[in-house]
Amino acid sequence: MFPEPRTLSPKSRLFLPDSRLPRVYLVAAGPGDPDLLTVKAQRILGEADVVLHDDLVTAEIVAKVSPRASVFSVGKRCGPKNISQEEINSTMIAYARSGLRVARLQGGDPLIFGRAGEEIRALGEAGVDFEIVPGVTAPLGAAAAAGIALTERGAASSVIFLTGHHSASRARSELGWPASIRPDATVVVYMPGDDHAGLAAELCARGCDFETPCLIVSGASTVQQQSHLTTLRELPSAPQLPSPRLLIVGVVVARAQAGNRESGFGSRKISASVFQ
Amino acid sequence: MFPEPRTLSPKSRLFLPDSRLPRVYLVAAGPGDPDLLTVKAQRILGEADVVLHDDLVTAEIVAKVSPRASVFSVGKRCGPKNISQEEINSTMIAYARSGLRVARLQGGDPLIFGRAGEEIRALGEAGVDFEIVPGVTAPLGAAAAAGIALTERGAASSVIFLTGHHSASRARSELGWPASIRPDATVVVYMPGDDHAGLAAELCARGCDFETPCLIVSGASTVQQQSHLTTLRELPSAPQLPSPRLLIVGVVVARAQAGNRESGFGSRKISASVFQ
Repeated sequence: MFPEPRTLSPKSRLFLPDSRLPRVYLVAAGPGDPDLLTVKAQRILGEADVVLHDDLVTAEIVAKVSPRASVFSVGKRCGPKNISQEEINSTMIAYARSGLRVARLQGGDPLIFGRAGEEIRALGEAGVDFEIVPGVTAPLGAAAAAGIALTERGAASSVIFLTGHHSASRARSELGWPASIRPDATVVVYMPGDDHAGLAAELCARGCDFETPCLIVSGASTVQQQSHLTTLRELPSAPQLPSPRLLIVGVVVARAQAGNRESGFGSRKISASVFQ
Repeated sequence: MFPEPRTLSPKSRLFLPDSRLPRVYLVAAGPGDPDLLTVKAQRILGEADVVLHDDLVTAEIVAKVSPRASVFSVGKRCGPKNISQEEINSTMIAYARSGLRVARLQGGDPLIFGRAGEEIRALGEAGVDFEIVPGVTAPLGAAAAAGIALTERGAASSVIFLTGHHSASRARSELGWPASIRPDATVVVYMPGDDHAGLAAELCARGCDFETPCLIVSGASTVQQQSHLTTLRELPSAPQLPSPRLLIVGVVVARAQAGNRESGFGSRKISASVFQ
């Protein structure tokens, strides 16, 4: 399903300063706003011959790719495409071996709940050199837009990144959830899914207070961004905002709301079922 | 100790698209490499009138600041300076109120173990509008440089960010450490301090296996970057690498090392006391 790799002229030193070949760049696209690409990521997108990106990468970011590049959407979340991780790996490797400059672009940062782990191993086993270009992981984009710090001295002293996955039927203990959660931890649930009631129950069963404020953020940092502020008690009646979304739970959420109101961030489409 | 704010001509629409004034930008400097600034952060540094930065911000990043700007180092970690958080807050507010474009620049991302929480509250209480520009938090820079994903399907399903702080005398439970840590969690300790033996003991007391691989990373993403790969059992005899540093603990660390060797990352000054 991919076109045949073509051979290119020798690579520019700007792109490959140590001239080792082949090389694949595993690039963080950040939460969605192209201004939140790193300088390095933007440069690589402008110079790559082949870009493989997932569904979470926004059109505004894909637009940063060189018009000469071959661009493939390899997302697995929606649409008629059905591309396995093995196909993505072998495609990256084939293009890189043919001498093309390959950028594998993933929403957020691929090192946290992305595919980088599997891709690093595949590239390593194939003897293809690679470089990881880190970026802004989605919760930082969401927190920044909402005016929330994820830690705060004396109030929130740790951050836990979990995934809710799409499958409500899988026990959350199988998803790596800890047995207990401190009330002063900030918890971020990536891909929290639609089962708000189950999510709230699981968090409270682990020690979170029912009154803990939480914020659902959809499309963080994009023009489509929406947020909904609530508590774990009220989470089951919260609206189902569009994907991609995440849930931030912790005392910092309430603090940020106070800051938001006073500093005029209220215009940012934060809907609230509490804290009126 | 700061010069008097001066009044400027009206702000450019590029910098303040909605023309609300005053505004302070709380900007992530990322782990150290100026190429890991976001596009937005780089633009703001080039346009700010006043930049307040902490000690973790590298000289290469400070060099991105407009030569017309007033630049203040407000780090509290070393040197003869003794600037309180209140002074930083009141300085940002005073400059912003005088109509100057203020960037508060912090190493890593200020939303995780930075000062953003306190600064957001101070700006909110003063009625000064602000915007947070998120960035690459230090562990992502460290993991990327070491070729490590922090999560991996079926192997590492959660990420916990903790701080070791500088004070070995403070109980780690006071620092927000959880009562237990799953063996499949990836733990990142910011500012792990010099008490390697205490750190390893505290992690193992919470459920980490003594054989869990761990990586100390110093100066992530900078030319001074150094790493040391070991296990929790051997951590007490690990070298004291220069600050800033962090500790990554988890099964992903071992996986990454295998990837590193095969893909030629060995030249990156990773010293190892195991996995030879």
